[in-house]
Amino acid sequence: MEKWRLLAPGPTPVPQNVLNEMALPIIHHRAPGYKAIFKKVSEDLKYVFQTENDVIVFASSGTGAMEASVSNSFCKGDKVLVVRGGKFGERWGEISEAYGLNPVYIDVKWGNAVKVEDVKDALNKNPDIRGILIQASETSTGVKHPVKEIAQLVKENDNCIMIVDGITGVGVFNIEPDNWGIDILVSGAQKAFMLPPGLAFASVSEKAWKFMERSDLPKYYFDFKKERKNLKKNQNAYTPAVSLIIGLSKVLDMIKEEGLENVFKRHSILAKATREAVKALGLKLFAPDSPSESVTAVLAPEGIDAQDIVKLFREDHKITIAGGQGEAKGKIFRLSHIGFFDKFDIITAISGLELALKKLGYNFEMGKGVGKALEIFSNEI
Amino acid sequence: MEKWRLLAPGPTPVPQNVLNEMALPIIHHRAPGYKAIFKKVSEDLKYVFQTENDVIVFASSGTGAMEASVSNSFCKGDKVLVVRGGKFGERWGEISEAYGLNPVYIDVKWGNAVKVEDVKDALNKNPDIRGILIQASETSTGVKHPVKEIAQLVKENDNCIMIVDGITGVGVFNIEPDNWGIDILVSGAQKAFMLPPGLAFASVSEKAWKFMERSDLPKYYFDFKKERKNLKKNQNAYTPAVSLIIGLSKVLDMIKEEGLENVFKRHSILAKATREAVKALGLKLFAPDSPSESVTAVLAPEGIDAQDIVKLFREDHKITIAGGQGEAKGKIFRLSHIGFFDKFDIITAISGLELALKKLGYNFEMGKGVGKALEIFSNEI
Repeated sequence: MEKWRLLAPGPTPVPQNVLNEMALPIIHHRAPGYKAIFKKVSEDLKYVFQTENDVIVFASSGTGAMEASVSNSFCKGDKVLVVRGGKFGERWGEISEAYGLNPVYIDVKWGNAVKVEDVKDALNKNPDIRGILIQASETSTGVKHPVKEIAQLVKENDNCIMIVDGITGVGVFNIEPDNWGIDILVSGAQKAFMLPPGLAFASVSEKAWKFMERSDLPKYYFDFKKERKNLKKNQNAYTPAVSLIIGLSKVLDMIKEEGLENVFKRHSILAKATREAVKALGLKLFAPDSPSESVTAVLAPEGIDAQDIVKLFREDHKITIAGGQGEAKGKIFRLSHIGFFDKFDIITAISGLELALKKLGYNFEMGKGVGKALEIFSNEI
Repeated sequence: MEKWRLLAPGPTPVPQNVLNEMALPIIHHRAPGYKAIFKKVSEDLKYVFQTENDVIVFASSGTGAMEASVSNSFCKGDKVLVVRGGKFGERWGEISEAYGLNPVYIDVKWGNAVKVEDVKDALNKNPDIRGILIQASETSTGVKHPVKEIAQLVKENDNCIMIVDGITGVGVFNIEPDNWGIDILVSGAQKAFMLPPGLAFASVSEKAWKFMERSDLPKYYFDFKKERKNLKKNQNAYTPAVSLIIGLSKVLDMIKEEGLENVFKRHSILAKATREAVKALGLKLFAPDSPSESVTAVLAPEGIDAQDIVKLFREDHKITIAGGQGEAKGKIFRLSHIGFFDKFDIITAISGLELALKKLGYNFEMGKGVGKALEIFSNEI
């Protein structure tokens, strides 16, 4: 029997009713029926993004919307501040360099959140910084950055915009772009939106639209202004990923029905249970001080390769979890709780972990981790 | 009863067994199971593209691969020859201009194919042209351009590459990139590949890879060199559209089973039957001299708005066909026969057309069109 389970931070599990909806006969993207769906989806996205601003949709992975945020907002040589504390922070830097921007880096030790003070200092030293590029949740390290506090630093500054990669943040924990002053907030289909990969989203503030009037960088497919114009006609500039938009309509209904606050609460409890269970097994968190509710990164015990844990999950238990990326490879493994997850998925993850650790010769009392998670669920749900 | 039929040139109908396959639980793109599928898909794409070269896959609509062909191959100010005889020819021009290239245009009357002589003249007048940008099949007009003959003009010229938008060409009629000297051949999921939109493909020749070493235009998500590097590890640089790749694996099996020559023959017969049926009704083809096997563009009869025909198809018969785009809007309607189409789909299309024409007061003998199509099927299948 091949019963596979996907407990990785993206792609995340897709509810079967959504998969079924996407398996209905395909419809044409210029037909009125589709336009009504896209109109509804555009409105519902605002609810999940907690914004009054337009949310633009691209047919691409999340990286496409990250690139669009840079190529649409800036001019060659513009100075931007890049918070680099993981693989996705590095990606902001790579994109900025690809477009000939002038990035100022704040290098943060992997597993740590950036200090607001350090951002403040960098802004003071470089008053010509035109944008801050940061992750709400750095998926590679399981760290949550203090984007609210950082956004405040530039909220009243007309010459600097705040761009947040919320790919594993939006729909996981509270991010309020309009209230906090986040000008572009990016996300993607295959995380809290519970869909297969292939859609990228970005909400854009009026301040950012002004930057886009000035931007002189080349772009074509990822063109926010062109998409905004088409959005008014309830369509995309280019052929949209129709089946994913159909699925999106369905998952947005699910999120609205659960209620965004309940969605956040669920993620928060699942994350807490995961962290506490792992600690009860004597393991250490990779990001103990500012953990994200989307994914829990765990240091492998002394003498055990984290990749062996990932491998045992796959081979013995048919569970896909994530290992470390870049410099964290072999050191950490990552348990996800983004999207279509409930308490029994966490129990499954911790059970798999206990079985793997036992096989690898790690010394602990079996059931300790699962027991701790159950205790938390019993108190908090 | 709502029995909808999709007879438009993209998205095209997706076989139900493929939709079902894509509705299986989602898998992780870094897991070994997925990599085996992607490896197989990459090989099978070469079969459909009729090439020994790598075929790169992006998660985007086809336009993404068009943009990539430009942004990866050229330098700012490079002179390119753009064949502009429809909406997609215009798109080549827009992309070239967005990236600061220096396009030389050959403007072709909509509905006509470019003359090889005109391309030859332009190349002679501009020996510094670095690339030719053209459609194999101009979907907006139903025209097939003589890409084989044009490719010959630059095949032996190391300083000029031939880039062909084969979005409605690949898998529809014969295009031989390696033999003819097409350096980049682009296609997309939602045409002959019978999938929902969201994947773009491009085969790249060794000559084009050399151009890519020199290119200085900014790019990040659409980066051929990065994808080629990842392809060697049977993966994409960024999160792929997993469910569409699963579907792709299935449709490539279907194409291999039918055999590419039979696929071409089927399209050719369906296209011929459509053209002859339309002519039997006394209507005129928009592209009589060089019609594409992917889509048949038809001029609405004198005094009838083509959009009214499209509307009747939709409202009376629940059939989605395409109208004209740009300057052809209101003048033409387009009947598609790309991908998952058989003879009865053509009979349905012609029947719908006859019903619509009758309602709009056009004078003809009912059954003439369908009869002509049946005659062709009876002789040729």
